[in-house]
Amino acid sequence: MVNYPNGRLRTHSTVPKKKTQTGPSVTKKSISKTKGIVAFGKRGMNFEGEINSTNDYYLSHGLAVIHKKPTPIQIVKVDYPQRSRAKITEAYFRQASTTDYSGVYKGHYIDFEAKETQQKTVFPLKNFHEHQIVHMSNVLSQGGIAFVLLHFARLNETYLLPSSRLITFYYEKNGLKSIPISYIREKGYKIETNHIPRIPYLEIVNKLCEVQ
Amino acid sequence: MVNYPNGRLRTHSTVPKKKTQTGPSVTKKSISKTKGIVAFGKRGMNFEGEINSTNDYYLSHGLAVIHKKPTPIQIVKVDYPQRSRAKITEAYFRQASTTDYSGVYKGHYIDFEAKETQQKTVFPLKNFHEHQIVHMSNVLSQGGIAFVLLHFARLNETYLLPSSRLITFYYEKNGLKSIPISYIREKGYKIETNHIPRIPYLEIVNKLCEVQ
Repeated sequence: MVNYPNGRLRTHSTVPKKKTQTGPSVTKKSISKTKGIVAFGKRGMNFEGEINSTNDYYLSHGLAVIHKKPTPIQIVKVDYPQRSRAKITEAYFRQASTTDYSGVYKGHYIDFEAKETQQKTVFPLKNFHEHQIVHMSNVLSQGGIAFVLLHFARLNETYLLPSSRLITFYYEKNGLKSIPISYIREKGYKIETNHIPRIPYLEIVNKLCEVQ
Repeated sequence: MVNYPNGRLRTHSTVPKKKTQTGPSVTKKSISKTKGIVAFGKRGMNFEGEINSTNDYYLSHGLAVIHKKPTPIQIVKVDYPQRSRAKITEAYFRQASTTDYSGVYKGHYIDFEAKETQQKTVFPLKNFHEHQIVHMSNVLSQGGIAFVLLHFARLNETYLLPSSRLITFYYEKNGLKSIPISYIREKGYKIETNHIPRIPYLEIVNKLCEVQ
């Protein structure tokens, strides 16, 4: 198999991400994060940022190739000023039809969504749209590895919950609007956060691969 | 493994795609396609549309879960009109750092880029950015299946070229700006287009899985 040095990829993959954190660009996620300033300020980097930096680490160390998908946007109007690049002048955020993160790890297809909450005892189900649940179910049917990373900001606890457990809860506990943290602790895996990489979720994925 | 009926996913996954083909929204791809009106008009549906409809077919028949990633966009200004949703008023197209399509098929991670040309004897390499080449190389290193779908619009011929072959050509034939069609015919696989699905590329992917 051909394997070339990949020093240049890091530049490409990190530059846009850095821009979304510090530059003038705005993403749907960073907008919603301004509502949760407590967690953002306390921890120095938001949950999404920590996952992105973890994925950068995995990529640059040749451990996995996992990327965040771009935010889906519906474009309505585009201007083409002479001698400069196309400028979008009217567009709207669209709901994602799949999950945010996907990639490949030791041949396995990896698919996950990452969410955080300010709640201390439950994780609100409104964080997941039904078509995301259906997408995760489809991924499992094709032999992929699907999960959610759930961060309780005020507890500073992060869990990996396999999608099969989320799906079961979603359909069987139809009346409930939230997952109790006890269910997540029982059916999921706590991720001990590190300095580098911040959220070493592949350690848990290794366990999921063994189970399969 | 939990496996729920997935009738609703099709609705979600196809609506945005249909909008990009017939509605007021504009994507980077559809803009560039207006330059190639010949192919667009002749064939009723452009190459990207045919691949999307193929993926819809694979998804709805439970054969594979493969999606096109959203076009990456850098957002500069967002308005928040009262009582209505956020409106993006200044944004720009960004170069994709990975390939356009990815997903899972029988447990395998699938990753590909699809491009068409008006040339008859060569496929211009400018269709692929270097970081896309590096991304495909990373995917191969992790045991994923990576390839490009190349469509010669005027010949009405479509080929699947494994990324390993593209990468070899890209680095070893550094002086050349195009891949001769003879190389693609020798190292790639011709895809016989169908009525449904339009571009049955999974038949070739089955062969690639056997080789691995």
